[in-house]
Amino acid sequence: MSLFPAPLENLIDSFASLPGIGRKSAQRLAFHVLSLPETKAMAFAEAIIAAKKSVHSCPICQNLTDGEVCSVCLDDKRDKSVICVVAEPRDLASFERSREFNGVYHVLHGLMSPMNHIGPDDLKISELIARVAAGDVREVIMATNPDTEGDTTAMYISRLIKPFEVKVTRLAYGIPVGSNLEYADDATLVLALEGRREM
Amino acid sequence: MSLFPAPLENLIDSFASLPGIGRKSAQRLAFHVLSLPETKAMAFAEAIIAAKKSVHSCPICQNLTDGEVCSVCLDDKRDKSVICVVAEPRDLASFERSREFNGVYHVLHGLMSPMNHIGPDDLKISELIARVAAGDVREVIMATNPDTEGDTTAMYISRLIKPFEVKVTRLAYGIPVGSNLEYADDATLVLALEGRREM
Repeated sequence: MSLFPAPLENLIDSFASLPGIGRKSAQRLAFHVLSLPETKAMAFAEAIIAAKKSVHSCPICQNLTDGEVCSVCLDDKRDKSVICVVAEPRDLASFERSREFNGVYHVLHGLMSPMNHIGPDDLKISELIARVAAGDVREVIMATNPDTEGDTTAMYISRLIKPFEVKVTRLAYGIPVGSNLEYADDATLVLALEGRREM
Repeated sequence: MSLFPAPLENLIDSFASLPGIGRKSAQRLAFHVLSLPETKAMAFAEAIIAAKKSVHSCPICQNLTDGEVCSVCLDDKRDKSVICVVAEPRDLASFERSREFNGVYHVLHGLMSPMNHIGPDDLKISELIARVAAGDVREVIMATNPDTEGDTTAMYISRLIKPFEVKVTRLAYGIPVGSNLEYADDATLVLALEGRREM
């Protein structure tokens, strides 16, 4: 005998299948949804349907969009000759929040990870190479996370781009602003020293 | 300018409105839903709609059910003369899991809490009194949480039931099974001593 009516068990299962949500949290969330006014609960369900139906990848940069082309690629004021390559739409959002970068992006939708059987063909790498091959690109900035998977993917892509004679750069490694040297890890300190600049 | 397409922002907002889910978690959940296969995402949305549409309170005990009457009230083998009063359907589920209690329940859907402006009229107390007044009830077990709100509510209800000359009991307080005396709090220890039984 199940402890809750079937539709409720079903909703708990749905929540529990989300990443980072355990059985108890899923129960709490499901009860919360049940306690919502009818309109709010329906709005939640419709938000899922609408997002799933209308959000797709931008055919140019693979960023998520609900339009034909994403807002960055559509913007005439952006410098289309500089492409910043990121792993996820979330990373792109971080750059946009800083309001400093005026080029365009390319979202890989993941990073190469042999451990998880994710190879280059599982990422949007061929789309990036096609953009570079089409010309008009001056610089490709590799902005993947500074870890094994990020570095491996950046290295792999930079080799593919080399034949096109386009400048490939990567983000500077170093001490993050506002941090404490006492707690900086050795690898970061070494890279910060190596990359030191004249004042 | 918003960082994500509107339908995605919308879905993030929906997740962020759930209890215990912050902005960053909501983003992660929304991206997860987007990455699901179409059928799974739709199943999630439909689980919300189905639960909200079909789950309602049992007219007898106020437990959640998708049938006309809940499975406990429907069960002929349950002793209808013993009513266990709990605050939430989750508490009922805990008792059912133990498979020990053979009576029926009454779910209050909350506890009296002057701080949060929840009075007796916001709970399913009058429904309980109506059941007791209808007769055929031998015992009402108050199984609210052993805290201020739980105790207050239990006390309030027991006074209302007194005129009907029905036995009103509450759960035993004491040391939980498998716990360590060293870490037991004083209030529990005092109650455990008071409630000691001959071996």
